[in-house]
Amino acid sequence: ERRAELKMLVLQEINPNVKNMKDVVFSTIKRRADQISKELREGAQKPYQHLIDVSSGDPHASGVKPLTFVRQVLAACIYPELVNSNRLPADVRQRAQRILGECVGGSVGSYTATAGIPEIVHRVSEFIMRRDGGISSNPENIYISPGSQWAVQNILKLLVKDEGPLRTGVLTPGPCYRTTITSITGIGEVPVPYYLNEEQGWELQVEELHRALESAKEICKPVALYVINPGNPTGQLQSRKSMQEVIRFVAEKKLFLLADEVYQDYIHGPNTEFLSYKRVLFEMGSLYSDTVELASFHSASKGFTGECGLRAGYVELVNIDPKVMKYIQKLFSKDSCAPVLGQIALDLMANPPQPGDPSYPLHHMEVENIRKSMARDIKRFSEVVNSLPGISCQPVEGGAFAFPRVHLPPKAIQKAEELGMKPDTFYCMRLLEEGGLFVSPGCDFDQKEGTHHIRISVVVSGDVMEELLQRLSCFHLQFMKEFA
Amino acid sequence: ERRAELKMLVLQEINPNVKNMKDVVFSTIKRRADQISKELREGAQKPYQHLIDVSSGDPHASGVKPLTFVRQVLAACIYPELVNSNRLPADVRQRAQRILGECVGGSVGSYTATAGIPEIVHRVSEFIMRRDGGISSNPENIYISPGSQWAVQNILKLLVKDEGPLRTGVLTPGPCYRTTITSITGIGEVPVPYYLNEEQGWELQVEELHRALESAKEICKPVALYVINPGNPTGQLQSRKSMQEVIRFVAEKKLFLLADEVYQDYIHGPNTEFLSYKRVLFEMGSLYSDTVELASFHSASKGFTGECGLRAGYVELVNIDPKVMKYIQKLFSKDSCAPVLGQIALDLMANPPQPGDPSYPLHHMEVENIRKSMARDIKRFSEVVNSLPGISCQPVEGGAFAFPRVHLPPKAIQKAEELGMKPDTFYCMRLLEEGGLFVSPGCDFDQKEGTHHIRISVVVSGDVMEELLQRLSCFHLQFMKEFA
Repeated sequence: ERRAELKMLVLQEINPNVKNMKDVVFSTIKRRADQISKELREGAQKPYQHLIDVSSGDPHASGVKPLTFVRQVLAACIYPELVNSNRLPADVRQRAQRILGECVGGSVGSYTATAGIPEIVHRVSEFIMRRDGGISSNPENIYISPGSQWAVQNILKLLVKDEGPLRTGVLTPGPCYRTTITSITGIGEVPVPYYLNEEQGWELQVEELHRALESAKEICKPVALYVINPGNPTGQLQSRKSMQEVIRFVAEKKLFLLADEVYQDYIHGPNTEFLSYKRVLFEMGSLYSDTVELASFHSASKGFTGECGLRAGYVELVNIDPKVMKYIQKLFSKDSCAPVLGQIALDLMANPPQPGDPSYPLHHMEVENIRKSMARDIKRFSEVVNSLPGISCQPVEGGAFAFPRVHLPPKAIQKAEELGMKPDTFYCMRLLEEGGLFVSPGCDFDQKEGTHHIRISVVVSGDVMEELLQRLSCFHLQFMKEFA
Repeated sequence: ERRAELKMLVLQEINPNVKNMKDVVFSTIKRRADQISKELREGAQKPYQHLIDVSSGDPHASGVKPLTFVRQVLAACIYPELVNSNRLPADVRQRAQRILGECVGGSVGSYTATAGIPEIVHRVSEFIMRRDGGISSNPENIYISPGSQWAVQNILKLLVKDEGPLRTGVLTPGPCYRTTITSITGIGEVPVPYYLNEEQGWELQVEELHRALESAKEICKPVALYVINPGNPTGQLQSRKSMQEVIRFVAEKKLFLLADEVYQDYIHGPNTEFLSYKRVLFEMGSLYSDTVELASFHSASKGFTGECGLRAGYVELVNIDPKVMKYIQKLFSKDSCAPVLGQIALDLMANPPQPGDPSYPLHHMEVENIRKSMARDIKRFSEVVNSLPGISCQPVEGGAFAFPRVHLPPKAIQKAEELGMKPDTFYCMRLLEEGGLFVSPGCDFDQKEGTHHIRISVVVSGDVMEELLQRLSCFHLQFMKEFA
């Protein structure tokens, strides 16, 4: 410290965009959570024996078991002696052998092409076609990356232009996934929130898009619209009509459309189905399908695969000028390639075992068990949470999260202010400290001013769900009483 | 195309920094290489039956076998049933069990902390201390990332400042690893080459650093110096004296030092040893060790592990202001975490089996075999290549590459010009087409104007080395005759 004057990199000297990156309250709560876990390990006496962390959508961390088929194929790819072992089902060994044949030098330890192993990219493209009812997909427009957010960042990077009097703007939902906001500001772009209508089940309303765009005037030049469907943190599933409105809006305003669709497999209602933006776009006719520039994202971290730790997602690009595609290739190529085992997980997610395959019965059962238990748990979550005084939660139709609104008593808000905290941060800190439950505060997600929420992952095992509901209910009643 | 006027993203509109990213000739040659491979698969008759690709340092792609111990532990981590199987050595199962205990929820499919699994980061830090003769290393200064280049980019991003009349500059070696140059320009920084002295075995000379810095005046504001040791593409190993000169230079000029040390395990001479910049810095006394800001990079893609496809590297930061560290944390946290299996490979690289462990004899033998065969092959490479007319290659003391200079005949240079190609690109294209050997042209690496080189990976199996030397010799003699 004493030699600070000899250093070149003082805080004043760092990239101003990086300096603009918002502090996420999550980090502060996480530090305390880690501390509490350490105290518990060292024998501290608390009203709970371990923390429940539902602050991120991380199924394996919350008791959901990995899919056996996925893990068996990965193990055989990493240790090919298993391909010749009769301990693994025949289709597992065939898959592994095929994939190893597609790896350079027959090893998952080799680099792949920038966009991913060509055969895997091809199979992902076929998956997209099947999903979208036959609408064509070109493998050359698909890039596999170490997580979908990484691909989002590359597209954002392409769009930023720091020339002229105004910065580049990106329309983002309010509330919005916090990492996206951080990425946008870190790149030097300005997020322009369009607020979702909570009372209408977090519906996206087109008048609000117009208002948001208008609000950006003289602040920035919006070039793109970012949408998350199913919603994070909202849990909302967009209707075709709503998506059509978004598409007409971006077409009219000449905005690039970024559609974060990583939760497409998590559809919790019995009578709902996921529609991709690409499908809706192509079913609107060539006036739109020939012109609207779309990037759609998906991930092996989400859905029933839930392999967050393997780090793989993809982007499919639609209607991008070939001259621009060349630069997208450059942007992705400087990171060499996505982790090969993540690429394989993506392949298996896109191409699960089929009826007749030896692994099908077990795989099917595992997936159905997760699906059913998730639907049941989310139903129960809604009932319990909505029965509590001072909490209301919109229906969780899709995605990994519930985003209940907490109507905090004035005394609690006052107390938070005294402590220099946002009201929902105060609530989350107390819930962590007293209830042993780690959730994210709504203030990290660009929620509407004056409202307070908590974000809770609902992709957890049944046991974890029971325990978390109990801890939340018990804490909440106590908290409301204290500040009544 | 007909609707281009309706699109928002025409080439003129993209990020100007991205547009500045240099075209790498490598991509063009790669496209032709992929085409040739396809033609061969379809039965085309050529003077060779398959291509040899030594354009990247990718050991597994070039016949080097993965290390058994690494693959066994990874397989058991991904498919924990193997932990209970007696088919794997006891220490493999113990390692896997320990690592799984360190993963959230006991699964490699869960997210980890931003910097990596804390216990693994801790063990990497201990490895660094052992390597550097006991100089202390703080785990809080280490970030594991999806490949070391990814960490390099985050540090570069921190340093860029687009305010004031001059852009941010980074001193880079000439020749330099091409991806680093692309990253620098893509971020909006200006690379300022300092040329290594080829005739002196690619030595870094401090007068040249002064000349380079002076040359930057009125063009950009240099804030950092990037060095690669052992060299890529040069294969040079820096002496302590040379490193001390660099350290004194950056201290005097207040430059941030980025030390790319990913090839630290590849030391080919019998009487040479790798010294890290951190060690040399700390052995120069507190005037330097308290002030010089250093980022040192390493990778699981390199060394005997060679797991390029798993994507994991790390950066250790030294002397960074705590207020700045906070932003480094933010930059890394927007990418959630590095692939868990890559993190594990890094752990195993830093902590291989020890004498007495059941896996030690095999592991030791495998590593020694690679080391010895590499030393033998590189010796043979130098002899053969230096015996050819019109090629000269400086000693390959470390790293994964040789960078021989090709003294092209005037007629060849003229022919290349007629074809609108750089002379060494012309040579590489012909070598690919006629010799079935894919190497990188020196023009991609910021070589000194008027010199021509090719970069060849030497981390290949013995068989591949024999075949590549034969193809190179045969082609080269023919080529020189043709253009004599």
